[in-house]
Amino acid sequence: MRTVIVTDVPHPDADHVERLRSYGVATIHEALGRTGSLGPDLRPVQQGLTIAGRAVTALCWPGDNLMIHAAIEQCGPGDVLVVATVTPSGHGMFGDLFATALRHRGVPGVVIDAGVRDTETLREMGFGAWSRHVSPQGTVKASAGSVNLPVVIGGQVVEPGDVVVADDDGVVCVPRLRTGEAVDAAAARAAKEDATRAAFEEGELGLDRYGLRPLLERLGVTYEPWREGR
Amino acid sequence: MRTVIVTDVPHPDADHVERLRSYGVATIHEALGRTGSLGPDLRPVQQGLTIAGRAVTALCWPGDNLMIHAAIEQCGPGDVLVVATVTPSGHGMFGDLFATALRHRGVPGVVIDAGVRDTETLREMGFGAWSRHVSPQGTVKASAGSVNLPVVIGGQVVEPGDVVVADDDGVVCVPRLRTGEAVDAAAARAAKEDATRAAFEEGELGLDRYGLRPLLERLGVTYEPWREGR
Amino acid sequence: MRTVIVTDVPHPDADHVERLRSYGVATIHEALGRTGSLGPDLRPVQQGLTIAGRAVTALCWPGDNLMIHAAIEQCGPGDVLVVATVTPSGHGMFGDLFATALRHRGVPGVVIDAGVRDTETLREMGFGAWSRHVSPQGTVKASAGSVNLPVVIGGQVVEPGDVVVADDDGVVCVPRLRTGEAVDAAAARAAKEDATRAAFEEGELGLDRYGLRPLLERLGVTYEPWREGR
Amino acid sequence: MRTVIVTDVPHPDADHVERLRSYGVATIHEALGRTGSLGPDLRPVQQGLTIAGRAVTALCWPGDNLMIHAAIEQCGPGDVLVVATVTPSGHGMFGDLFATALRHRGVPGVVIDAGVRDTETLREMGFGAWSRHVSPQGTVKASAGSVNLPVVIGGQVVEPGDVVVADDDGVVCVPRLRTGEAVDAAAARAAKEDATRAAFEEGELGLDRYGLRPLLERLGVTYEPWREGR
Amino acid sequence: MRTVIVTDVPHPDADHVERLRSYGVATIHEALGRTGSLGPDLRPVQQGLTIAGRAVTALCWPGDNLMIHAAIEQCGPGDVLVVATVTPSGHGMFGDLFATALRHRGVPGVVIDAGVRDTETLREMGFGAWSRHVSPQGTVKASAGSVNLPVVIGGQVVEPGDVVVADDDGVVCVPRLRTGEAVDAAAARAAKEDATRAAFEEGELGLDRYGLRPLLERLGVTYEPWREGR
Amino acid sequence: MRTVIVTDVPHPDADHVERLRSYGVATIHEALGRTGSLGPDLRPVQQGLTIAGRAVTALCWPGDNLMIHAAIEQCGPGDVLVVATVTPSGHGMFGDLFATALRHRGVPGVVIDAGVRDTETLREMGFGAWSRHVSPQGTVKASAGSVNLPVVIGGQVVEPGDVVVADDDGVVCVPRLRTGEAVDAAAARAAKEDATRAAFEEGELGLDRYGLRPLLERLGVTYEPWREGR
Repeated sequence: MRTVIVTDVPHPDADHVERLRSYGVATIHEALGRTGSLGPDLRPVQQGLTIAGRAVTALCWPGDNLMIHAAIEQCGPGDVLVVATVTPSGHGMFGDLFATALRHRGVPGVVIDAGVRDTETLREMGFGAWSRHVSPQGTVKASAGSVNLPVVIGGQVVEPGDVVVADDDGVVCVPRLRTGEAVDAAAARAAKEDATRAAFEEGELGLDRYGLRPLLERLGVTYEPWREGR
Repeated sequence: MRTVIVTDVPHPDADHVERLRSYGVATIHEALGRTGSLGPDLRPVQQGLTIAGRAVTALCWPGDNLMIHAAIEQCGPGDVLVVATVTPSGHGMFGDLFATALRHRGVPGVVIDAGVRDTETLREMGFGAWSRHVSPQGTVKASAGSVNLPVVIGGQVVEPGDVVVADDDGVVCVPRLRTGEAVDAAAARAAKEDATRAAFEEGELGLDRYGLRPLLERLGVTYEPWREGR
Repeated sequence: MRTVIVTDVPHPDADHVERLRSYGVATIHEALGRTGSLGPDLRPVQQGLTIAGRAVTALCWPGDNLMIHAAIEQCGPGDVLVVATVTPSGHGMFGDLFATALRHRGVPGVVIDAGVRDTETLREMGFGAWSRHVSPQGTVKASAGSVNLPVVIGGQVVEPGDVVVADDDGVVCVPRLRTGEAVDAAAARAAKEDATRAAFEEGELGLDRYGLRPLLERLGVTYEPWREGR
Repeated sequence: MRTVIVTDVPHPDADHVERLRSYGVATIHEALGRTGSLGPDLRPVQQGLTIAGRAVTALCWPGDNLMIHAAIEQCGPGDVLVVATVTPSGHGMFGDLFATALRHRGVPGVVIDAGVRDTETLREMGFGAWSRHVSPQGTVKASAGSVNLPVVIGGQVVEPGDVVVADDDGVVCVPRLRTGEAVDAAAARAAKEDATRAAFEEGELGLDRYGLRPLLERLGVTYEPWREGR
Repeated sequence: MRTVIVTDVPHPDADHVERLRSYGVATIHEALGRTGSLGPDLRPVQQGLTIAGRAVTALCWPGDNLMIHAAIEQCGPGDVLVVATVTPSGHGMFGDLFATALRHRGVPGVVIDAGVRDTETLREMGFGAWSRHVSPQGTVKASAGSVNLPVVIGGQVVEPGDVVVADDDGVVCVPRLRTGEAVDAAAARAAKEDATRAAFEEGELGLDRYGLRPLLERLGVTYEPWREGR
Repeated sequence: MRTVIVTDVPHPDADHVERLRSYGVATIHEALGRTGSLGPDLRPVQQGLTIAGRAVTALCWPGDNLMIHAAIEQCGPGDVLVVATVTPSGHGMFGDLFATALRHRGVPGVVIDAGVRDTETLREMGFGAWSRHVSPQGTVKASAGSVNLPVVIGGQVVEPGDVVVADDDGVVCVPRLRTGEAVDAAAARAAKEDATRAAFEEGELGLDRYGLRPLLERLGVTYEPWREGR
């Protein structure tokens, strides 16, 4: 394990970040060609909050928050702290004291592939948290790790400097050098969804709108009426 | 796998459906002799909503929503869409566009043994969703499956035309030909629960009300006072 | 399995219980030297409720609530019912009828390493429930177990007479003979957290406040600036 | 739950059973249109054994083997005992005494969606066991269930009288009225696999043999040479 | 967490240990009234080996083997090292070097609620290992824990000085002060099993031998013949 | 998702590959600073086999083996096929036909983050397979994916051209440009382990060999003799 703290991570385009936040996780994920999701196991401890920002990454030993302390110093306004552990950890590695320190630096939330605690206080503070667990189990400060090296969560690589977007659906990661492309694709996707939504509200079927009837036929799917007892 | 879309599934008795909705999942499950539950892993994305309706079933390939499109055409007012996958899937296979299409057809909610997304929008729409996961991960439209064949969720067979009831406790399935029996048994169960509730509010114990003391004795359970250090 | 119901379990100091309740789960857990947590899998069915009280324990056969009936008789004002099963159980072993009986006796909530049901009613009643599952699946009353013998949940032993504290972060157990020590340590911990919070709000870093920079250096952690392409 | 023991379950064609045994689980599963698998969680406790026979089914309360005793009486030569539980159970519900009783009746093995024990003895006896768990945890005999009603394992319905085939790959269920069809399809499948195996041994690629290159092209999959650093 | 190393743990009766080893895990578990199992998740990395010995316990931080080093010094001939972690750990915390050190001290095996590695070498050495995981993931030596305090594995408390027995079925723990009682009960149990085995080999049914027919009747279980189509 | 097949992936140094194979997974993992493990969930279907080779990677839709067909064409002598899926899959995506095709091309084994089948035949062929599941459940050939783009398994990135080593302990990935460094570090590690093994065989303790006694003292770990009853 490389034990290094990388400083001066480049910032993604601020306007792109704000626009990505406005589109939300599901639309961005589609816009990226269905990539970037950190998976179904990272759940928010609050409802109705969407955040987006530059990823500052920390890799910790399970049950050891030393590198979170080091990562906080690397965080600035609008950043999102992203914490992974070397192997799975059920510890409550992040709580309201860390949130207080991060809020001072202008950080809107944390994404952590382990546990959080003080969740009621986090909700009262309006500080966003997406985690695998909620757990009171505390941590030590004993083992080396890294800050701002790539981490993997839910099978997805998060590079420092990438844009992380999180809402009620989960968390998605947009590569730093593809944020412009993602914004454009998300805008197109959102426009297409709006048109589809309007059509669906009028009663059009996806079978017709997406031209799926020939596909069903080609796949050998047939229609037959119900017969009692079959 | 039979790749067929069955049409004209019979409707359960509308009055039975409405009465089942009023009793809720736990009471119905008891009334059915403790059967019918789709298990503890299907959780609602909202709170305080109860739905009931005829099951329209879809069996999909994991990560492939083609058959949901086909199933929507088979849904009408009051129906509940029930989606299973051939093997487990963490994909967000159902989102607000599908909900829009279903709401147009008078469908109050979906039960899906996979993931949903756009959960904040679903809550705003008042469209009910019970799922195994919440996930932004999108899907393809490529593989054949079935509509309105029996599916299995949480070890429970759901036949098309059965009544599905879902609330904060989970989801229960009532066989189409047993809805009358279920309504009667649920009514009896609810009356009995009301009487028990009144008795418990007055301080009666279940040990006495259900005559359990002789059973404890027969099983060899004994009482002994606390001793420090034992 | 010893099949016994132990009566007359001693009461912890009432003032200690109340003070522990005021500190909450995460602080107490730290105060106990990071022990006592019942793990991340016991989750509340409500938000914003904190309870604390003497543990009355029940050990049940999976899917069998006979010993809960026996345990209720052993509960008095302020007690917390703690239910474990011999092996894992997804059954909804606790519902609103049990809650009604317990509320009559002055019990504020239940901690159960299995499922609960009637969750909407439990929330309306203001009766706290922390469980591993929510499930409508009902139970039988057929098998012997124990009341007020030690049980294990999430790897933590809970002795009858211990103080159980539960809030949004989970559940923690304080040994009966260590409640005074726990109160003192929690008070010290809370004071220290308050001071840290104030410092963090002013921008001090944990790296400095806890003197972690020398530790990082000793562990061989180095700082280096970002290099594009690395 | 219907608490009934069904007797006189019809026998599948004996020749079909023997031929299905000779084809093995994976080939039969393909022959059935990729249906019938009891899922990846049922594992054999031995290696290199294949069994096939009429399913005699038992549905038990978790941790309660009463209905296995009742099911054994319904077993005869060549049958396979299939045991499911109402909810998941980690108990060792089946051991060498049951195997002894079944061997007397000519039963070659058991498929159980719970735990087994005495595994070393079972291997010495040559009695096949496919289970979800291995566990010494014992059981009670207290709760009603059923024998020879349909059960669900791994999302697959097993009807009494169906043919169950089990080998190192897992377990597959063939509906009683489709065994002839399954034998024919398995024979065709096996012949096709033999031809494919011969072709692959000569170096032919699946891309060519199955005509997949146009599909790749239609899906927009492109070829590009490696570029360092990309 | 108490960070202490307890020395001079008393030894269980050597003759009892040897006799418990001869009975095996499943029989002992039954003899203890179906208690003592460390659960279905601890699996052996070898087949056909049974060990029994005094438990020397270590409690480690996840991914940190410091306390295993300290525990080895407390091990002597015939002891079994039992390792738990504060929270779940997928690390390969034990390998062939530890086994070499323990073999020098006469220790026949290890029981660890985490991962092991070098499994092929362990099998060649004939050193027994029961673990939750197999994993190459290595560890650090950084965090305090305990040696010879009680630990919990699979919901079972293991006290230092208890007798741990492990075979292909899993691991069972016999309290130090109950070994004589366990030997007697296991002998009785084994004799009873031998008699039952002989009866089953002659074709007697459990329904008759255990007198279960009246119980089935009392529970309302009925017999009915198969009807096609039901 | 990028749907591309990358050709002409560079080869790692052949001598390095062979030497890495000789050191095995656990030693290499340590030599890499405790990185590179694909986690405890990938298990071999055989025992006693070690393979090493250039990684050819495939990313598939769950339950869809189309891209495995495309990947085989990219495999040559000594390569190891590494298969990941977009989301978790319990399908038996790899069987003896694929193994036949790969053996023709000189490939010694496969690493797949999904299921395999035909395991008995694979063992007879001596073709190595490391997988998350064993399952007969078959697949379709319908969805686009990629070949020779980086994939993530167990939180570890595998780049095409990396060296993958697999044995009874699991699977480890060595970056292509660090194979020389890994060989040297593994050699040093192996020499150190040999010396330690010799010392341990003579009875030296890790506490002394690694100088851990001062660390225990600094961490506040104390020794105390056993006291009955504590």
